[in-house]
Amino acid sequence: MTTRRIYLQMKGIAEARELFFSRLAWESLAASEEIPTLAARGRVTAAPVWARWSSPAVHLAAAATFGATPERPRRLALGREAIPVNTGHLMPPGADAVIMVEHVPDPEADPITVEAPVFPWQNVRRVGEDLVAGEMVLPEGVEITPWAQGALLAAGVTRVTVRRRPKVIIIPTGAELVPPEELGGELPEGRLPEFNSVILAGLVEEAGGVPEVWPVVPDDAASLTQTLKRAVAGAEVVIINAGSSAGSEDYTYQAVAALGEVLVHGVAMMPGKPTLLGLVEGKPVLGNPGYPVSAVLSFEQFAAPLIAALSGRRLTPRARILVHPSQNLPSKPGITEFVRVTLGRVGEKVIATPLPRAAGAITSLVRADGLLEVPASSEGLEEDRPVYAELLVSPEDLEGTLVVLGSHDNTLDLLATLLRRRDPRLRLSSGHVGSLGGLMALRQGRAHLAGSHLFDPETNTYNIPYLQKYLAEMPLKLINLAWRQQGLMVQPGNPKNIITIRDLTRPEVRFINRQRGAGTRILLDYLLKVEGLDPAAIQGYEREEYTHMAVAANVKSGTADAGLGILAAARALGLDFVPLTPERYDLVVPEATFHDARFQTLWEVIRSPEFAAAAAALGGYDLRDCGAIVWEQK
Amino acid sequence: MTTRRIYLQMKGIAEARELFFSRLAWESLAASEEIPTLAARGRVTAAPVWARWSSPAVHLAAAATFGATPERPRRLALGREAIPVNTGHLMPPGADAVIMVEHVPDPEADPITVEAPVFPWQNVRRVGEDLVAGEMVLPEGVEITPWAQGALLAAGVTRVTVRRRPKVIIIPTGAELVPPEELGGELPEGRLPEFNSVILAGLVEEAGGVPEVWPVVPDDAASLTQTLKRAVAGAEVVIINAGSSAGSEDYTYQAVAALGEVLVHGVAMMPGKPTLLGLVEGKPVLGNPGYPVSAVLSFEQFAAPLIAALSGRRLTPRARILVHPSQNLPSKPGITEFVRVTLGRVGEKVIATPLPRAAGAITSLVRADGLLEVPASSEGLEEDRPVYAELLVSPEDLEGTLVVLGSHDNTLDLLATLLRRRDPRLRLSSGHVGSLGGLMALRQGRAHLAGSHLFDPETNTYNIPYLQKYLAEMPLKLINLAWRQQGLMVQPGNPKNIITIRDLTRPEVRFINRQRGAGTRILLDYLLKVEGLDPAAIQGYEREEYTHMAVAANVKSGTADAGLGILAAARALGLDFVPLTPERYDLVVPEATFHDARFQTLWEVIRSPEFAAAAAALGGYDLRDCGAIVWEQK
Repeated sequence: MTTRRIYLQMKGIAEARELFFSRLAWESLAASEEIPTLAARGRVTAAPVWARWSSPAVHLAAAATFGATPERPRRLALGREAIPVNTGHLMPPGADAVIMVEHVPDPEADPITVEAPVFPWQNVRRVGEDLVAGEMVLPEGVEITPWAQGALLAAGVTRVTVRRRPKVIIIPTGAELVPPEELGGELPEGRLPEFNSVILAGLVEEAGGVPEVWPVVPDDAASLTQTLKRAVAGAEVVIINAGSSAGSEDYTYQAVAALGEVLVHGVAMMPGKPTLLGLVEGKPVLGNPGYPVSAVLSFEQFAAPLIAALSGRRLTPRARILVHPSQNLPSKPGITEFVRVTLGRVGEKVIATPLPRAAGAITSLVRADGLLEVPASSEGLEEDRPVYAELLVSPEDLEGTLVVLGSHDNTLDLLATLLRRRDPRLRLSSGHVGSLGGLMALRQGRAHLAGSHLFDPETNTYNIPYLQKYLAEMPLKLINLAWRQQGLMVQPGNPKNIITIRDLTRPEVRFINRQRGAGTRILLDYLLKVEGLDPAAIQGYEREEYTHMAVAANVKSGTADAGLGILAAARALGLDFVPLTPERYDLVVPEATFHDARFQTLWEVIRSPEFAAAAAALGGYDLRDCGAIVWEQK
Repeated sequence: MTTRRIYLQMKGIAEARELFFSRLAWESLAASEEIPTLAARGRVTAAPVWARWSSPAVHLAAAATFGATPERPRRLALGREAIPVNTGHLMPPGADAVIMVEHVPDPEADPITVEAPVFPWQNVRRVGEDLVAGEMVLPEGVEITPWAQGALLAAGVTRVTVRRRPKVIIIPTGAELVPPEELGGELPEGRLPEFNSVILAGLVEEAGGVPEVWPVVPDDAASLTQTLKRAVAGAEVVIINAGSSAGSEDYTYQAVAALGEVLVHGVAMMPGKPTLLGLVEGKPVLGNPGYPVSAVLSFEQFAAPLIAALSGRRLTPRARILVHPSQNLPSKPGITEFVRVTLGRVGEKVIATPLPRAAGAITSLVRADGLLEVPASSEGLEEDRPVYAELLVSPEDLEGTLVVLGSHDNTLDLLATLLRRRDPRLRLSSGHVGSLGGLMALRQGRAHLAGSHLFDPETNTYNIPYLQKYLAEMPLKLINLAWRQQGLMVQPGNPKNIITIRDLTRPEVRFINRQRGAGTRILLDYLLKVEGLDPAAIQGYEREEYTHMAVAANVKSGTADAGLGILAAARALGLDFVPLTPERYDLVVPEATFHDARFQTLWEVIRSPEFAAAAAALGGYDLRDCGAIVWEQK
């Protein structure tokens, strides 16, 4: 029951691929089939295709035309010496040249007068001008575009031999999984949604394969082995998801080893380490990791090139651009790490801001604009030192992106939606690094604007003293977004009866904090100081989250009893809320950004009735100063 | 019956688009629909999507793990104080941290000993770590990737509101057309294959629309008007192909004007001029030109952006690279011209070689690697002066391309196929500019190698004297491809009894010639000189074609009675052949090319039994010297 396997010998990506691909019997796996040309778009020719007919198949008039004539002005009787004919139509029998109607002074007359010279076969598309019967229309190994389809039909080729799309069976494993078709209601207690198979099926199609998702197999070696045996008999490729890591119930290794051979178990990549590559009855079997980001990245390295090669496609590598990491990214040497980043051009540089690195965070892929690869030979990437990123969005998307870093507020999501609705070329990319983090980002040229709600007790104002301290040299405008309600988020019904900031020091109350530099953290420390309370007395003071919603999620799930945050976040998760103080949330807008047309559009959105209505619906926002320039620094 | 229309006022591309798009009621044309998330890949969100659940929905073990422990070494009873748990599995009730199995000295013991420190919630994926219920999963207006599908399902979102794909009805017109489904047999006399609708349907799908091809409508105004009326009632967009040019039977203008409004008739682009843009009952109607290349290019300018906008997609512009035209490309000012080119990197430059410019030449699109745009403001492009090209192939394709310019030989197609079969990354791109043209291309660095069969009567040798004259400074190798049979191609049965070169001067014999600089032309002139014949005595001496196959096609179709060429071309079209002389066809290979790994692979192919067998099957080739280095210049 407890047969555990630490990865036997972890391989590098290239080595793993070589070990795997060099053992495949490519020729027997790749097959071809004859299909109608009408259904061949996107398929790859398996042999050269030769024209059955010439194209055009008959002589055709090549311009809007009207009769034939020698060089000197001459009269031609209509219907006998000259016959009207339209572009693309057949040449009348006996005619061997065409003159354009524009060159006939009066085309309605009879006889017509023609003045332009013409030589034999002028303005005639002769038989075979484009394609001669017996000529090659398409070579072997090319993808059939819509116009290639047209050329094939023009040449009378109605059936074409193409590479077969390999069938790829995907086997989800795990007794706790609820299949995607059954996710419409509530999730049963203790069950998890299965969605990796949907992701993998989409990726299989995009690589050129035909996916077939099988029912979830429970975690036991016998079931998986049996299922794998059947799958291998009916597919060119089998993907088991998951069950390739080192836990006691990871039976992929056992199943593949029992039926065939494990070639690779564990790849030096992150995410994606628990990848297994094997062979069963000559068929490639991939044990794909269970975390969704790992599943995708492992697929891209091993399954995608395999499926593409079998289907005859060549994968187009993603575009790469030079980017500047917004922070140091230490990484374990010996392992290739793929970091998901958001990207935005600020001034001359494209800034790459890392998203959460956890392999379970599927949203880190959804939100990513690019992928940074930290090579196995490296100990990480350095802040601001340029590296190449693979683009997950189009280069145009980057040019339309405004980067806002700093404090998190729920209305930023609203702004992003409304901005895109106003101009689909524009995107608002927000990174949550806390208010002070946002000011630092502006100072270093890593963001277009920053969200900030830094309270200064001495002057009893927001943001301005901090701007004077940290961005003294920068001409900028401070534009209000909203006043919002800060307070304690507690479980519904407030079971621990948390009413004041002092209640946080009670021994049975577990707190969840925001990170250093966050405006909310600064507010908490200020409130504690006013009350004369010691942070060390608060259980959980050292546990940090980066957003209001993450704090709320901790309270919601019971890992904490209280957290400081905004009403909108508490309301979004159905938590109770104990209001403590209103605070001003502003956007810090450097002059360079202020005069940027993209920001001007954003500013219009901020001052629109649509934004006011949507923010009001979130709760806890007072928009009396919304959009106003509250302060300027020249 | 003869209501003709010359284009009323031809518009520039941008102006035409503006006139058209500014009149569309975008909001009523674009619709949204709710569909299952499982079917949403590739669709575009019509509204922001919010998480219904948190993800993960329960606390999960985050590493291959085994129990919990305080900082100092301690013993924990299995099953009570410590519970085995696998990565990705649910946390057992009461547990609030996880320690990795690798940190437990003997995981099989009971009690276990643990030495590593752990803090609350370490190695636990807490509820909502990735996504919190109520958080935005996807903003409005983004394309749903496989991983976005996964994120939606992880968040319990099983149905999603997306932009509807617009229905696009395509109406082919022309009584002479045979629909694509009926092209399997022989083409009936006087009929033409219809294939534009297949091309357009593919392009509609790729732009994000749902195409529906209607039956061919005959050329009459009443039928087309009636059909258009029905189509407009059932689609968001209607495309009529063709019938927008200035001929007498082009009824698209009449139909659109009768039912609605013609906004643009004639666009200053080439190919693509006969484009009509109109509105009928608020629906956009496009009259698409009849020549296939025009149809595609007009579609790309007007229909593609329209359909993409309605479906919410954004079209990814093609990659652009700087290329050097291989020759001057004069172009009419006032008209934007799109020139299809083949591309290949020779040394530091990417050389763009124009393909036939005729709009009827669908193969010019099929063979194209790129598109050059000659702006309306320009009189053309200059040889070797760099311009941007849009790429139709991947940048990797260019790196794998060997460019052979010069004389045409049918075995070059064979070589291309066999080369690609040996290494799918390699392509052989051949341009037919005649033997001398190939030598000039080598001199100017526009090709990797050249095909040549230049006979020198004084030395009675091939190629060498020409190389000494034109490429004296260039170290190179001359490698034989084949000896081949040159002769007269005549109609089957040789009805005009053409036996010798002298027969070409008979008054009833119409000849078709090769272009100046072609080895075959030089051979002809030599044979005429030997016989003391005057070229002016040959009817058709001044009619030039660029390939053996084109010459053969002229004979086949009856526009000529004889042409000089190779046996393989005559045989491909079923012509009779009067042999005149064997000749040597060589490849001229500069040293730089010779040492290129790509050429080495090609050379292997040339010397392979597969090539020998395939060339022999074409007929007329003698391979005794095939692959041999016949001469070297240091």
